[in-house]
Amino acid sequence: MRSLSGIQPSGQLHLGNYLGYVRPNIERHKTVDIGFIMIADLHALTTVQDPEKLKANINDMMLDLLCCGFDFSKTVIFRQSLIPEHAELMWILATVSPMGLLERAVSYKEKVERGIGGSVGLFAYPVLQTADIVLYEVNKVPVGKDQQQHVEIARDIAIKFNNTYGDILIVPEGEVQKEVAVVPGTDGQKMSKSYGNTITLFGPEADIKKAIMGIKTDS
Amino acid sequence: MRSLSGIQPSGQLHLGNYLGYVRPNIERHKTVDIGFIMIADLHALTTVQDPEKLKANINDMMLDLLCCGFDFSKTVIFRQSLIPEHAELMWILATVSPMGLLERAVSYKEKVERGIGGSVGLFAYPVLQTADIVLYEVNKVPVGKDQQQHVEIARDIAIKFNNTYGDILIVPEGEVQKEVAVVPGTDGQKMSKSYGNTITLFGPEADIKKAIMGIKTDS
Repeated sequence: MRSLSGIQPSGQLHLGNYLGYVRPNIERHKTVDIGFIMIADLHALTTVQDPEKLKANINDMMLDLLCCGFDFSKTVIFRQSLIPEHAELMWILATVSPMGLLERAVSYKEKVERGIGGSVGLFAYPVLQTADIVLYEVNKVPVGKDQQQHVEIARDIAIKFNNTYGDILIVPEGEVQKEVAVVPGTDGQKMSKSYGNTITLFGPEADIKKAIMGIKTDS
Repeated sequence: MRSLSGIQPSGQLHLGNYLGYVRPNIERHKTVDIGFIMIADLHALTTVQDPEKLKANINDMMLDLLCCGFDFSKTVIFRQSLIPEHAELMWILATVSPMGLLERAVSYKEKVERGIGGSVGLFAYPVLQTADIVLYEVNKVPVGKDQQQHVEIARDIAIKFNNTYGDILIVPEGEVQKEVAVVPGTDGQKMSKSYGNTITLFGPEADIKKAIMGIKTDS
């Protein structure tokens, strides 16, 4: 069994990342032959367009991931953009992906509604994600509930490819993570860098203390 | 000066290819430092989905191009899919390409109207074309009239990229080929493989004879 899981390089890991992503994958890797952790920097380009910031975020995240306790006898952590096959297969899959399939993607609509400019990259995001998955020949893809539709799209594209070119790609199956913790941030919303409410995993003690002391408690 | 020109691998070259594409580029290469001829097989995937046929078409075209009299001291003929940077840069450019820009592409609308299924690849075709152009740092791109809008799109994307990341890409300019011959096929329409009205350049004598003798003349 092979496993693949991607994470966007949002910088230093925080408690939300650890409980929601890192720990479940450490557990998961105990049951697989090889587990891939992909730092999805090609995907990140759809939202982060500051090269220095992105570079720093990738390094920070890689460093933190290395310190979390993965079993490196069977864990591979890699940076997506260093493997050209992701973009190459993305193009090939794009030629068999119907426009209508992508137009129905909820996450694209939501991002556009939130004012993130509708780029071709944002639109074609699920096609790149399909390439990510099928490249590593994984059967089951651990997904959060918000990513379920993307795995459905990946299945549709893989099936379309196989119908066109023969039985080549493994059609992936989503495995919805039920026990994944949604960790509240210091303001009570879901902990996320974009809300500025995180408690970092390996940050300076003073910063962590400040973040924790800022949490509002009942009066 | 550097020049780049792409041709879809439609198989053996015919007289229309020779007069409309090959000869103008042989002439053009006399005036440049280096001239690239790209066999655009990644683009071809948007319409040809038979691997054996595509492979044969690429080989036939490469063989014929080698026999046409290019000056190989400064001509490079290459197959697009062997250079991963085309797909990689395509993805990067996609993240700065507004959907609206692509939705206005006439050739996409036309192909969809002609019943060629609207795939993401067909839609994003001009983004890949932009990558093709800017990768080789060419200033002027020789284009037929039907491709003029694609160079406009390539300019827009390159400018958008430079606005986002700094002055990195050379913004290409289209150079409309005025004297390009439109060669009629054996049935009077434009000579094209898709109309089955071609006279091949290096085909067997009997086939060429048959094609020519089939041309209708005035009674």
